[in-house]
Amino acid sequence: MKLTLLDSSLRDGTQGESISLLEDDKLKIIDVLDTLGISYIEAGNPASNPKDAELFRKLKNRPMKHSVICAFGSTRRKNISAEGDFGLKALLEAETKAVSIVGKSSLMQVREVLRTSPEENLAMIRETIDYLKSKGKFVIFDAEHFFDGYIEDEEYAMASLEAAKHADILCLCDTNGGTYTKDIFEITKKVCETFEGKEVGIHCHNDCGLAVANSMFAVEAGASHIQGTFLGFGERCGNAVLSTLIPNLQIKRGHNCIPEENLQLLTSAARRIADVANFSLPGSRPYIGKSAFAHKGGMHIDGVTKQSSSFEHIDPALVGNHRRFLLSEMSGKTTLMSRIHAIDPTIERSDKKVEEIIEELKLREMSGYQFEGADGSFDLIIRRKLGLMPTFFHLDYFKILGEQPMLSSEYPSSAVMKVRVGSETEITAAEGNGPVNALDLALRKALMRFYPKLSEMRLTDFKVRVLESDATTAATVRVLIESSDGRNRWSTIGVSPDVIGASFIALRDSVEYKLMLDNLAKK
Amino acid sequence: MKLTLLDSSLRDGTQGESISLLEDDKLKIIDVLDTLGISYIEAGNPASNPKDAELFRKLKNRPMKHSVICAFGSTRRKNISAEGDFGLKALLEAETKAVSIVGKSSLMQVREVLRTSPEENLAMIRETIDYLKSKGKFVIFDAEHFFDGYIEDEEYAMASLEAAKHADILCLCDTNGGTYTKDIFEITKKVCETFEGKEVGIHCHNDCGLAVANSMFAVEAGASHIQGTFLGFGERCGNAVLSTLIPNLQIKRGHNCIPEENLQLLTSAARRIADVANFSLPGSRPYIGKSAFAHKGGMHIDGVTKQSSSFEHIDPALVGNHRRFLLSEMSGKTTLMSRIHAIDPTIERSDKKVEEIIEELKLREMSGYQFEGADGSFDLIIRRKLGLMPTFFHLDYFKILGEQPMLSSEYPSSAVMKVRVGSETEITAAEGNGPVNALDLALRKALMRFYPKLSEMRLTDFKVRVLESDATTAATVRVLIESSDGRNRWSTIGVSPDVIGASFIALRDSVEYKLMLDNLAKK
Repeated sequence: MKLTLLDSSLRDGTQGESISLLEDDKLKIIDVLDTLGISYIEAGNPASNPKDAELFRKLKNRPMKHSVICAFGSTRRKNISAEGDFGLKALLEAETKAVSIVGKSSLMQVREVLRTSPEENLAMIRETIDYLKSKGKFVIFDAEHFFDGYIEDEEYAMASLEAAKHADILCLCDTNGGTYTKDIFEITKKVCETFEGKEVGIHCHNDCGLAVANSMFAVEAGASHIQGTFLGFGERCGNAVLSTLIPNLQIKRGHNCIPEENLQLLTSAARRIADVANFSLPGSRPYIGKSAFAHKGGMHIDGVTKQSSSFEHIDPALVGNHRRFLLSEMSGKTTLMSRIHAIDPTIERSDKKVEEIIEELKLREMSGYQFEGADGSFDLIIRRKLGLMPTFFHLDYFKILGEQPMLSSEYPSSAVMKVRVGSETEITAAEGNGPVNALDLALRKALMRFYPKLSEMRLTDFKVRVLESDATTAATVRVLIESSDGRNRWSTIGVSPDVIGASFIALRDSVEYKLMLDNLAKK
Repeated sequence: MKLTLLDSSLRDGTQGESISLLEDDKLKIIDVLDTLGISYIEAGNPASNPKDAELFRKLKNRPMKHSVICAFGSTRRKNISAEGDFGLKALLEAETKAVSIVGKSSLMQVREVLRTSPEENLAMIRETIDYLKSKGKFVIFDAEHFFDGYIEDEEYAMASLEAAKHADILCLCDTNGGTYTKDIFEITKKVCETFEGKEVGIHCHNDCGLAVANSMFAVEAGASHIQGTFLGFGERCGNAVLSTLIPNLQIKRGHNCIPEENLQLLTSAARRIADVANFSLPGSRPYIGKSAFAHKGGMHIDGVTKQSSSFEHIDPALVGNHRRFLLSEMSGKTTLMSRIHAIDPTIERSDKKVEEIIEELKLREMSGYQFEGADGSFDLIIRRKLGLMPTFFHLDYFKILGEQPMLSSEYPSSAVMKVRVGSETEITAAEGNGPVNALDLALRKALMRFYPKLSEMRLTDFKVRVLESDATTAATVRVLIESSDGRNRWSTIGVSPDVIGASFIALRDSVEYKLMLDNLAKK
């Protein structure tokens, strides 16, 4: 079945705690969703937020590949005309092809929150929808509190849909996220039967951890329009996660949500949106998470190697993800050997160096290293033990100075760095916005004379994790750095009781990894 | 219906990427689960991991309030006797009352992965279960790949359960997490009918984001034993989340999972386990997340104030959580006023100071502050604007020194700190494991002479977030600090291009907050 999706990351999504999007972020997210082929992008609420109105002005002449931009608003206020409602005026000024209108389906909500008569609420819905239809809009009616409303007064909830019957889509909302899957199924089925021929939609929240299941059971019951947010952004526990629903519905259930060839863009789209929204995407997210196809237990790795369906419900490549074998006490030698063989295929399992590498890894893991997110540092350990790493430089020392208030410079921190390359030494200094920034700049500045290709390299991410947070500022610190030279990306790790020490270890590995890459390229 | 739960955080959970538990962590988690009243705690696999065997030795004489400790193992290896199997020997040496045994229910798995005959696999199951029953164990049979196996060869899957029929619980596993809810329901129903009178269990993985729904539908079909991990730890996308399932089943569906009076411990249990496991608990987690009952949109705050069920599916107190109104552009003045009134109930909405506070918050938010996780700093802004904050001290300056290799001390960083309190100055210095640690120690050392109660205070968490990660080490940095004095907890924030500067702002707020608390207590 052809399903239409509406992504509300920019509207409902921004109600999520710690989700805050600038206009430029929103435009980037729209591009990702449009490229992926999401049917509707609900880009904001022009009446309640002047920034959203500004965004819609920018969107008017923006060419779109697949998606229809949708503006969100409410039914007219009580006791005035639709024409006279400033909210609807703002909505029309957004000049979108599609609009979504929220109206109340719960009698209790009408009485307690809206504080108007049941009849006036129905008139608000009917007149608003009909007015927007008369303006030529594609109208999606979001029936707020529909399921609660249906359970408390079936007749009134159905009457609210009847009032909205000229809308193009009747979307049933589980507004407080508390409805159980079976009830979603049965009530949606009833609506689909009553409004046969009308497109019915579903809008779920995740307060019971059931938003994905509830959306799927609504489709089972006849709904063909699904609202959610790509990564689940949204108030409280978030909205239904489209990055899970799309493959569930399309790969597992055979429906059509986005163009088939775009399924493989899912993982990169998710990571791009997470980056833009400064959202730390949990590795465990279905389909698109970093760990979604990661295997740690030795028995599981053995199983998945013999028969991929043992521990993989789909081929990860279908959604642009990939299988990973993690290194840990449990995973055993097989994983390690595959990593060693990527560097030198001739090393035997029984080689003494393999034991040395395992010992080194164990020691490091005990002191807080975790190589699962630091492939670069991991490869460097193997290369060093295999004798495949030249000594590119020696550190003689560095010194860091910082002060506040600042007396003489715009930078609060400076670093002095002395290195040796072969028989030559270089001493230099750099200022930075902080000690780590100063160190980074000073190290690369000192080495640039010997290795000019270091200028291609930049750090793309820098993360600090405190390991034993009971001891807090005195605790062990783990620093993860991601770097790129435009062609390659690598990640390195440093652990130390000292954030500067940990940063320097990770920085040094990052620079050495780049030097190693350039050295290999020369050969 | 009375349901039994099995928590596998310590066994299946440790297969999760970046989940790594020391023995002491495991004992702490066992205490939390036992206090909560989880029926079974699967504490490890003594045959595959010597550390687990050691843990079981420690657990032998440990008094438990509610839970039964369970050791996990596999059916005997092929072509030997149960008595002669070293894995079962190790399992029995764990001396637990309950054991869980995994065996294969999928014919394809038997052929491709186990590589033995269908008959031998059935014999492995039967002889293992019967052997353990003869040793007086409570036996849970985990039917691995049961659902895939059933779909591919119903007869063989059912035969595997028949072979395990002397087990106390037959637990059906969706090992690769790919089975759809409807199939889980129908297949579980079939099993419950076939093995009427036998306790049937369910073990789900979250690869489709359906583990919670699948577990609930298995209960719907007749299962009464549910396996999962409290926070969803587990390989790939994790296991069914018990902290969601317990309230779903107990509050929403009327089943009995844990003693009723313990429901209110859910939130603190979840946060304690997250702390112990060094797991960053997403705020959006149903029921127990920090954001699970947090409201941001002004309309929503209005709705929930008039009628709590508008946007809250349960009373948060039922699970020990609480409602929060978040401050943001969208939430408007109502939230802010409730925060101001907590400090001074006499301030009017129209007070000029309210405007000043809003201006200050806007400026700070623009520069990267986010007060949603920093209640302490937020209150300090209000207090300062209301003229309710004494000037406890002035910073004259601090200076930081760091060097590597270290020449003269075990600490790589030191800080010089000069402060004034009234007309007195104090200059002191401290060494630390890093510049922030040195700063923290030096600041409190300098102030201790004036405010001895600062000795009660300690930092309990310290988080660093890079805001514009494209610029990396030169990017803006947001530091969040959590502090406690044994009676109160507060969180503070600092933002600066410089990690040291950001840390100092948050440290300073944290110390001032403590001084403010002590000052109020004196009154």
